[in-house]
Amino acid sequence: MADGLNCDLKSLTPLQLFEKVTEQGEKVRALKAGKAPKDEIDAAVRMLLSLKQSYKIATGQDYQAGMPPRDLVLINNSTTKEDDEDFVDPWTVQTSNAKGVDYDKLIVRFGSSKIDTDLINRIERAIGQKPHRFLRRGIFFSHRDMDQILDAYENKKSFYLYTGRGPSSQAMHVGHLIPFIFTKWLQEVFDVPLVIQLTDDEKYLWKDLTIEKAYEYARENAKDIIACGFDINKTFIFSDLDYLGTSTGFYKNIVRVQKHVTFNQVKGIFGFTDSDCIGKISFPAIQAAPSFSSSFPQIFNGKENIQCLIPCAIDQDPYFRMTRDVAPRIGQPKPALLHSVFFPALQGAQTKMSASDPNSSIFLTDTPKQIKTKINKHAFSGGRDTIEEHRKYGGNCDVDVSFMYLTFFLEDDDKLEQLKQAYTSGELLTGELKKVLIETLQPLIAAHQERRKQVTDEMVKQFMTPRKLAFEF
Amino acid sequence: MADGLNCDLKSLTPLQLFEKVTEQGEKVRALKAGKAPKDEIDAAVRMLLSLKQSYKIATGQDYQAGMPPRDLVLINNSTTKEDDEDFVDPWTVQTSNAKGVDYDKLIVRFGSSKIDTDLINRIERAIGQKPHRFLRRGIFFSHRDMDQILDAYENKKSFYLYTGRGPSSQAMHVGHLIPFIFTKWLQEVFDVPLVIQLTDDEKYLWKDLTIEKAYEYARENAKDIIACGFDINKTFIFSDLDYLGTSTGFYKNIVRVQKHVTFNQVKGIFGFTDSDCIGKISFPAIQAAPSFSSSFPQIFNGKENIQCLIPCAIDQDPYFRMTRDVAPRIGQPKPALLHSVFFPALQGAQTKMSASDPNSSIFLTDTPKQIKTKINKHAFSGGRDTIEEHRKYGGNCDVDVSFMYLTFFLEDDDKLEQLKQAYTSGELLTGELKKVLIETLQPLIAAHQERRKQVTDEMVKQFMTPRKLAFEF
Repeated sequence: MADGLNCDLKSLTPLQLFEKVTEQGEKVRALKAGKAPKDEIDAAVRMLLSLKQSYKIATGQDYQAGMPPRDLVLINNSTTKEDDEDFVDPWTVQTSNAKGVDYDKLIVRFGSSKIDTDLINRIERAIGQKPHRFLRRGIFFSHRDMDQILDAYENKKSFYLYTGRGPSSQAMHVGHLIPFIFTKWLQEVFDVPLVIQLTDDEKYLWKDLTIEKAYEYARENAKDIIACGFDINKTFIFSDLDYLGTSTGFYKNIVRVQKHVTFNQVKGIFGFTDSDCIGKISFPAIQAAPSFSSSFPQIFNGKENIQCLIPCAIDQDPYFRMTRDVAPRIGQPKPALLHSVFFPALQGAQTKMSASDPNSSIFLTDTPKQIKTKINKHAFSGGRDTIEEHRKYGGNCDVDVSFMYLTFFLEDDDKLEQLKQAYTSGELLTGELKKVLIETLQPLIAAHQERRKQVTDEMVKQFMTPRKLAFEF
Repeated sequence: MADGLNCDLKSLTPLQLFEKVTEQGEKVRALKAGKAPKDEIDAAVRMLLSLKQSYKIATGQDYQAGMPPRDLVLINNSTTKEDDEDFVDPWTVQTSNAKGVDYDKLIVRFGSSKIDTDLINRIERAIGQKPHRFLRRGIFFSHRDMDQILDAYENKKSFYLYTGRGPSSQAMHVGHLIPFIFTKWLQEVFDVPLVIQLTDDEKYLWKDLTIEKAYEYARENAKDIIACGFDINKTFIFSDLDYLGTSTGFYKNIVRVQKHVTFNQVKGIFGFTDSDCIGKISFPAIQAAPSFSSSFPQIFNGKENIQCLIPCAIDQDPYFRMTRDVAPRIGQPKPALLHSVFFPALQGAQTKMSASDPNSSIFLTDTPKQIKTKINKHAFSGGRDTIEEHRKYGGNCDVDVSFMYLTFFLEDDDKLEQLKQAYTSGELLTGELKKVLIETLQPLIAAHQERRKQVTDEMVKQFMTPRKLAFEF
C-alpha cells in the first residue's frame, strides 16, 4: 500500500502534495477529537508521516502548516522579493532596471515558452501575411501552446480569442490599446470570433468604487475598445456585472473552477491574505471561466470545448496558469496564451503606464498639445546630458522611453532602424526623436478619437448583447 | 491623536480590531521592504503597537497573526469543543444529551432572542388567529428582530419571506418539511410573498456531485416543496445555478456581500481552512444575497429595501449573523429571523435526521409499511426495559423520539397532553405511543405523496420562472 501510495504521489505537484498533507493532518485531528479507535488513528498517523516524507522528497523542505511550498510563493514573488528581482503580479509591475523587466527571466519563472523566429515564421506561413510588428519586435514575446493552435488551424480546426480589461477609470491610455490592437489583428488574419471581458466586478472589489460606477466605466471603456475596429459580427464584449445575470453557462463554469481551486492555491499564486475579502479570493475563477466556450452558450450556439487563445500582458498570466491547471480536471481544453511586455510609463520602464498617475500616461482623450507637452516634459530620455556629449557618445535606445514607444507604434521597420542608428550614433538628438514620436502618436490618437465619436449607444448595445456570432465551428 | 484613535477603536468589534492590526502589520512590512523614510516607518510601528494594545484590552488576548479572536471561534465552536458543549454549524449537529441540543444555551451563544409567551401572544393579536403549533410548542424557539417585523406589520408595512434548502439528494425526509410547513403558514396568515432558494451550487461544491445532478435534485426537491401547498402567485422557487444566470440583481448583491466579508470572518464563523476551495469560501454570500429584495428585481417589480423574514433551522443562523453584520454597510435592511430546533434522528435527539443515513430518516417517498417498520424498529424509546417497570415508573417523553415527532406533527394540543401524561405515568406503553405516531404520519405522508403527484412539470416551470409576484408593497 505504501508503495502504491508513493507511486501515485510522484505524479502530484508540490502544492497538491502540500494539500494532501494538510488534509491528512486534519483527518488525524478529527479522529483524535472524535475518540476514534486506536488502530484507525495509528493508520491515519502513519499515512500522515508517509505523506510528509513524500513532500520533503519532492520539495527539499519540511512540511510547515499554513506555508505552501516555496516555488509557488516564488511565482508570486511577493514574500521573497530580492533586490535584483523584478516584481510582477496582476496589480503591480516594478523593476530597478531602466531597460524594464527581464522578460527572459520571467519566461523561466512563469514556465512559458519564448516566441522565437521559428514560431513567428510558422505564423507567417499559416496566415500568408507578414506578422504584426508586435511579433516582429518581441512585444508579444512569450506563449503557451501557440504551436497547438497552429497545428489545429492548419488542419482547419478553428479557435476563439479571449481578452479583457479591468475598467478602473473612464480614461484609457495608449498602453491599454496594445492587447486590443494585437487582438484585432489576430481576429482579422485568423478570421475568428472574439470575447472581451470587462471585469467591472473586480474593480468594484479592489477599488473604492460603487457597483454603478464600475459598470459605467465598463460601458465607457467598451466605446474605446469598439473604436479599435473589431468586427461587430464576430465580437462579444461583456461586463461581468451584467453578463453573469444573463448567461446560464458562465456561472456554472465559475463554480466548476471555484470547486477545484483552494485558498492555499490562490494564496500562493496571487498573494492573498486572510484579511482579504472573499470576493477577491474567489475572483480568479471569474477571469478563468471565459477560457471555456461553454461559458457562452448563445455566442457559440451551444458548442462546447472550442479551443481558446488569450492575448494579454504577461502580468495576467497567473490567472491563466491557474485556469490551465484546472481545465483538464473539469473536462475542458486548456486555453493557449500569447503574452506581451508591459507598456512603459513615460518616466521609464521601471514601471508600466498607469492611468492613476496622469503624468505617467498619455490618455486616449489627450489633445495634440497635451501629447506634445507630456512627451517633451516627462518622457525619460536615453540621451546625454549635453548636446556635445550626445554628439560624441550617442544616446541609449534601451532606456529611452520615446524610442520604446516608437517600437510599439511606428509601423515602418526601416524607419525605426534608421532612428535607432542615428540616435545611438549621436546624430539624432533627444528633441528630434521626441518629435518623431509626437508626430506618430498625434494622428494615431486623433484617428482613435474620431472613430470613438462614431461609436453610438446602439453599437455598444449590439456589441454587448449575447447573440450568436457569425462563425461556424 | 492616540486618544482619538483609541476612542474610535472602542467602537470596533474584536474581529475588526484584529483586521486593523493585521493590515497595519502589512503596512509596516511594505514600508520596510520599500525602504521608506525612517520617520514614516517609526510612525507606522507606533500605530501598530497602539493597535495591538487596543486589541489586548478588548479581547484579553495577545494579537497572534493568522489567529482571529477567540470569541468568534467560539461561535463556530469547532476548535474549542468541550465535552459538555453541543456542536452546531450548518453541516453538523451533535450533542451528547439524549434530550437534544440545549437550545437556551444556543440562544446565549448565538446572541439571538427567545420566542417567549409575550411574543407569541403578540403574533396572535397581529394575525387574529391561533399561532401555529410550532410556535405554541417551542419548535420555533428563537428569533432576531421579529418584534420589528410586527411593529411594521401593525403599521401596514409588509415584508417578504425567504427560506431555502440544499438539494443534496432526490429524497427529502419529514424533517425537511418543518421550515416549509411553517413558512407556508406564515405566508397564509401574514399574506406575504416568498422566495425559496435551492442551493444546488452549494451541494455541487460540498459533495461529490456533478453540476447536472445537483440541478436535477433541485428540480426534484422543488416538487416536494410545491406539494406543501405554497401560493403559486406569491412564491418564487429558484435554483442558484439557474437563477444567477437570469437575474441582473442577484449577482450584484452577492459581490456586494463578498466585498464586505473577509476570509478571517468566514474562517471564524464557518470554520473554513486554507485547504477549502474558494467556492466554499465565497458561498456564504450566495446564501446571504436573497435577504435583500434587490436580488429579485422581477419578483418585486424593482422595489428595493423590502424587509425580509427568514424562517430556518438554527444551524443556518451563522449565514444570517454574517448577513446582518454586512447589511448596514451595503445600505440594506437586516433580515429578521425565526429559528427552529432540529428534527431529531430516529435513533435519538443527539443528531438531526439526515438523508444520508436511511435508518435515521423517514422519507417522503416511504410507503405506509416502511414508515411502520422504521418507527417500530428504530425510533428511540423513552420507555422502560420491561412492561412491569414501565407500568410502575412510566416513560420519559424528554428523550422519546416518537413523542418528539408527535409534538411536530400532532395538531391536537389536548391529545398530545393526554399522551404525555399517559406515557409518563406508565399507562401508555412504547408500542402504543409508536402506534399513534405511525397513524399520524402515514396519512400525512400519503397526502403529501398525493399532492406531489399533482405537481406537473408546467407547475415547476411556473414556480421557478422569475416573474412579478402578486403583491404590492
